[in-house]
Amino acid sequence: MSIKTALTSLLDIEHPILLAPMAGVSGGALASAVTNAGGLGVIGGGYGDRDWLTGELLKAGNTQVGIGFITWSLQKNPGLLDVALAYRPKAMFLSFGDIDGFAPRIRQAEIPLIAQVQTVAQARKAVADGADIIVAQGTEAGGHGGGRATLPLVPAIVDAVGKQVPVIAAGGIADGRGLAAALMLGASGVLCGSVFYASEESLAHPKSKEAAIAGSGDNTVRSSVIDVAREIDWPAQWNIRTLKNTFIDQWHGDLDGLRRNVATEMPRYVKARDAGDVDVSAVIVGEAVDLIRRDEGGAAIVQRIVSEAEVHLRHAPQMLG
Amino acid sequence: MSIKTALTSLLDIEHPILLAPMAGVSGGALASAVTNAGGLGVIGGGYGDRDWLTGELLKAGNTQVGIGFITWSLQKNPGLLDVALAYRPKAMFLSFGDIDGFAPRIRQAEIPLIAQVQTVAQARKAVADGADIIVAQGTEAGGHGGGRATLPLVPAIVDAVGKQVPVIAAGGIADGRGLAAALMLGASGVLCGSVFYASEESLAHPKSKEAAIAGSGDNTVRSSVIDVAREIDWPAQWNIRTLKNTFIDQWHGDLDGLRRNVATEMPRYVKARDAGDVDVSAVIVGEAVDLIRRDEGGAAIVQRIVSEAEVHLRHAPQMLG
Repeated sequence: MSIKTALTSLLDIEHPILLAPMAGVSGGALASAVTNAGGLGVIGGGYGDRDWLTGELLKAGNTQVGIGFITWSLQKNPGLLDVALAYRPKAMFLSFGDIDGFAPRIRQAEIPLIAQVQTVAQARKAVADGADIIVAQGTEAGGHGGGRATLPLVPAIVDAVGKQVPVIAAGGIADGRGLAAALMLGASGVLCGSVFYASEESLAHPKSKEAAIAGSGDNTVRSSVIDVAREIDWPAQWNIRTLKNTFIDQWHGDLDGLRRNVATEMPRYVKARDAGDVDVSAVIVGEAVDLIRRDEGGAAIVQRIVSEAEVHLRHAPQMLG
Repeated sequence: MSIKTALTSLLDIEHPILLAPMAGVSGGALASAVTNAGGLGVIGGGYGDRDWLTGELLKAGNTQVGIGFITWSLQKNPGLLDVALAYRPKAMFLSFGDIDGFAPRIRQAEIPLIAQVQTVAQARKAVADGADIIVAQGTEAGGHGGGRATLPLVPAIVDAVGKQVPVIAAGGIADGRGLAAALMLGASGVLCGSVFYASEESLAHPKSKEAAIAGSGDNTVRSSVIDVAREIDWPAQWNIRTLKNTFIDQWHGDLDGLRRNVATEMPRYVKARDAGDVDVSAVIVGEAVDLIRRDEGGAAIVQRIVSEAEVHLRHAPQMLG
């Protein structure tokens, strides 16, 4: 038994679960595991490191995976899209910026284009610009994102564009309750990040994964601290949710001070990240960390989410008395 | 046919829908309409205006309604709780502050105590302090609230205290999709504000209701502007979500400037509120405004939400292929 939606039909996959293309975390092994379990794994191409991407695609081997990029970053290096398309990914995933400059090439290559958005207005524009699938990402998501929350954003985007394209819920979903809830909202599936961040195949540091599994959703924050620390010039409308830690507490209210001290703070940050020092380096997960309590592989996560959701959906009519 | 949960059993009501006790908006007529339709209406006692509360309780007549207070404000005027308890409300609803100073009197009166919280830690404390029902309120809610989002907060609170008390979802819910989703998350019901703010019986200004019905969830903001403008000294952990408008845009980044000008800005704000000038006066609704597209009565809203949710729950197994 499995859950059939417009998403599973369009992508010809078994389960309506997508791996979030977490930059540098969702590599070839994790993406393969998710695809092989019946979902869709998406490699996190992020800011566009060609060598990293090529290496991770090799690890995925013959397994069909998608490739994700940060749209405003890809705009600075548009040639990378051709590299990605040459691999015939199962889907292209673009987030954080207008897709109109890339959609024609992706459509011409006959590869499904998934656009992640953070508002209803962005959803309308992305569909007009050629998206085949919309991911509605709520602010509770880990990593970069906007200000709207998943629960009211998903049905609003379904009302706006749901007759044209499947809508996928992202942000705050890490178990079968979240998948079942998303389907009730009119979504055709879910995209999960945090639960896969902590998975065996994730490229996050082992200590970061431990911190995610031990973390509390009460203890996350959206901030620009780690973007400033890494000298990545993110547009102001998006910032990054992580667990709180000493470094973020220190600089959250003083980004200008961090900019003045970046010559020492950036190397300190990078060193901490490589060492898995989670007091300084950010654990990039969202509010769903409360629901992540196990050290699992990517395939086991897909199977668990689906079987939990199936139980909830099968028993739903029993609530009617 | 109706939806049966731990909430409907505990309160002996027909439908698992609570009216949010919106201060000065949820009066006796609206609360009665919701109770008479099978949910539970809760009068918004807010900061504790005894004459207003008494008047609204009279309007509710023999209909059993609940009474809600802002907890930190009630702590300044604790005698008001006795006034409320003397009316034998169907439930007491406390939000924004520790309930330990009030719970013993409410329990002694054998009146169910509903505590609204914004974090998992607050939920654990409220249950330890004597709450009978927990409302898990997400940041997408209109009016005062915290920083966590409904979709991941509800299952986390269910995991923390759900074996002891029913958990109700609040924030972002305005139709049957939201109710069905909340039930999948493990909630025993929902609390709705925005959709009732715009209802016929709501005490909000007619122009504010029109603005809510026309509003976009992309266009709300959490801010302390209108609390500063009204010289209400809210604790820093909570602020208030409203539609954006000219007044909030003007002062959102300059609360100190607003404080310096409050002698002129407060009367300007109050005058605008009385006149329904929504460029200055706040329309106090949340991100669910996208889902509010009709001018309805409170009873029709309850019935619509329930019948929509019933359809989704009944058909849920059909997703399993």
